[in-house]
Amino acid sequence: MTQTISINDKQRLQLAPLEMPNRLLLGPGPSNAHPDVLQAMNKKPVGHLDPTFLALMDEIQSLLRYVWQTENPLTIAISGTGTAAMEATIANSVEPGDVVLIGVSGYFGNRLVDMAGRYGADVRTITKPWGQVFSLEELRTAVETYRPAILALVHAETSTGARQPLEGVGELCREFNCLLLVDTVTSLGGVPIFLDAWGVDLAYSCSQKGLGCPPGASPFTMSARAMEKLQQRQNKVANWYLDMTLLSKYWGQERFYHHTAPINLYYALREALRLVAEEGLANCWQRHQKNVEYLWEGLEDLGLKLHVEREFRLPTLTTVCIPEGVDGKAVARQLLNEYNIEIGGGLGELAGKVWRVGLMGINSRKESVDQLLGALRQVLPN
Amino acid sequence: MTQTISINDKQRLQLAPLEMPNRLLLGPGPSNAHPDVLQAMNKKPVGHLDPTFLALMDEIQSLLRYVWQTENPLTIAISGTGTAAMEATIANSVEPGDVVLIGVSGYFGNRLVDMAGRYGADVRTITKPWGQVFSLEELRTAVETYRPAILALVHAETSTGARQPLEGVGELCREFNCLLLVDTVTSLGGVPIFLDAWGVDLAYSCSQKGLGCPPGASPFTMSARAMEKLQQRQNKVANWYLDMTLLSKYWGQERFYHHTAPINLYYALREALRLVAEEGLANCWQRHQKNVEYLWEGLEDLGLKLHVEREFRLPTLTTVCIPEGVDGKAVARQLLNEYNIEIGGGLGELAGKVWRVGLMGINSRKESVDQLLGALRQVLPN
Repeated sequence: MTQTISINDKQRLQLAPLEMPNRLLLGPGPSNAHPDVLQAMNKKPVGHLDPTFLALMDEIQSLLRYVWQTENPLTIAISGTGTAAMEATIANSVEPGDVVLIGVSGYFGNRLVDMAGRYGADVRTITKPWGQVFSLEELRTAVETYRPAILALVHAETSTGARQPLEGVGELCREFNCLLLVDTVTSLGGVPIFLDAWGVDLAYSCSQKGLGCPPGASPFTMSARAMEKLQQRQNKVANWYLDMTLLSKYWGQERFYHHTAPINLYYALREALRLVAEEGLANCWQRHQKNVEYLWEGLEDLGLKLHVEREFRLPTLTTVCIPEGVDGKAVARQLLNEYNIEIGGGLGELAGKVWRVGLMGINSRKESVDQLLGALRQVLPN
Repeated sequence: MTQTISINDKQRLQLAPLEMPNRLLLGPGPSNAHPDVLQAMNKKPVGHLDPTFLALMDEIQSLLRYVWQTENPLTIAISGTGTAAMEATIANSVEPGDVVLIGVSGYFGNRLVDMAGRYGADVRTITKPWGQVFSLEELRTAVETYRPAILALVHAETSTGARQPLEGVGELCREFNCLLLVDTVTSLGGVPIFLDAWGVDLAYSCSQKGLGCPPGASPFTMSARAMEKLQQRQNKVANWYLDMTLLSKYWGQERFYHHTAPINLYYALREALRLVAEEGLANCWQRHQKNVEYLWEGLEDLGLKLHVEREFRLPTLTTVCIPEGVDGKAVARQLLNEYNIEIGGGLGELAGKVWRVGLMGINSRKESVDQLLGALRQVLPN
């Protein structure tokens, strides 16, 4: 080994082993992970083509179908965070020149616009003030006007706390021969979802919210109709890492090597999904609903106003109006530093106007709410 | 909560908590993770904008600069596996129509070809039989001929076990005003690398090999010259998740939210890098070299031949010729099932012809070699 260059030690930090604070994560995500999930994640890695790992991938696929209520064969985890799964739906469905109609009523609708444009889509948008949702009639008018190849909607807008109803949208899309793409990042595991019954063709989510798992392995699914569009493409998918023509051969029977999966995160995801299946979806959804109603009541008792109309509020994420004269950032900082509780601030149009409070996965429990309300009682001016 | 659709329990698997076998991972990766790294990974997640997490990101940046021997400000972890980091270098450097010259002497050179094409590159290749490397003269001739905007080389070809010398290549690229892009997936932490001294402009790696960390958070770096090309682009980077104009604002002073980082994997990566810094790069490289020489000796004592000429063999990954008449797959299967040892098979041109044996990170130690040689003595026909 010849080595004539000398080693530069300038960036060689001398650090102690890692210590991190013990936070109660009640922001828009990540949420705390279930202790059993952390324990599963901590097992020693095996190889990404180990027979035991391939069996675990099959379990993840089945359980993801269960939590999403779909029978789509191609239902997998993307080896990245929710944004990567979002990009996977766009990259695999959009061909240059396709009209993509996007419902924008928050930050993540805008992200879809930016992303679809990068894949050559002819993007059209319909918009609503942040915190509101589209009616089926509004969607029909827009689809009739723009005749899109894809309609993209955000089921649970993480930036506003609003739930976009999806009943009837799938039928509308079929009537106009259009694919329905849906963001379920802040709904999966916490909000009723019926992908097949609703006629959703492409959906993505994340692991660190309703599923109670650390972030980094993100649910993705596509229907037979979406697969057909993929198979008829003229050009390769403009993204190698997220190309479903390749990934489907790793997750499918062929087991072709594509990339080295984040092994331990898949352990964690499998365990998180197992726990949801054990609890049962109906119980899990009801728990999220019950605890958020308890939160809403407590916040209103403190004299706080909620940003979203009750009918469309998410059970997973609540936007709370920052009272006039209160420094929202200072309150969040105090909660973090003095109470080890994280809540989120507003994004985009809602920056400085709301706090975002998440009750997701294991954190959707009465004790979390009591802890937050107790701290708020101390921190907020009387 | 109105809910008239009934829940489908068909995919609701009833599973026991996760159990995984205890493998010694001596294939091309993942390698076993250091116990301290697993312990760090297991700490509870905090938020991706938590001040303690932002401090941890800074530590990762410094330590990545140290292990790569670079002072590039934009030296970060990509929230995906090594392939995502590979794609990040291509996506951020290639503009449609750019001539990209790629040295192909193995599977990962071919992957770069496929990827660069998807980003609109005018791809040219030079090739060598798998297991050989390019001389500086061959590279000069090719650069003179094709006048590329980018020259891409694989420092450590994981499919062949060959180490591509890089001395002088950076000067050549500067002479022809071309960026140098290098794959260091199987070299970082195990093979001497001096990115700045060698004039490398873009590099990527992974966490699960020389660094001894689980997969899923992957090193990426780009030089000031590469940043300049990025800033002068006519169009947005054709990949949202990996766009450095956005990511640099999350990792830089602005701390703009981009995506939810895989928090626990960053804990693990920080700890893995800390351990390399503690051992010291020179010691770490020497350990890899010493243990692989012990392996080579042992394999040759068993009558096995190595595929790559000694001068160009990687200390991290060794390709072993499968003797005539031996069923390579059956041997690997038996090692896995009876000895809990994983080794890899050949890819592409070398499929069926070689085994791939990795000694990386914590697995680069005498005991791993002894364990493998002992098992091979039992399994191989006399």
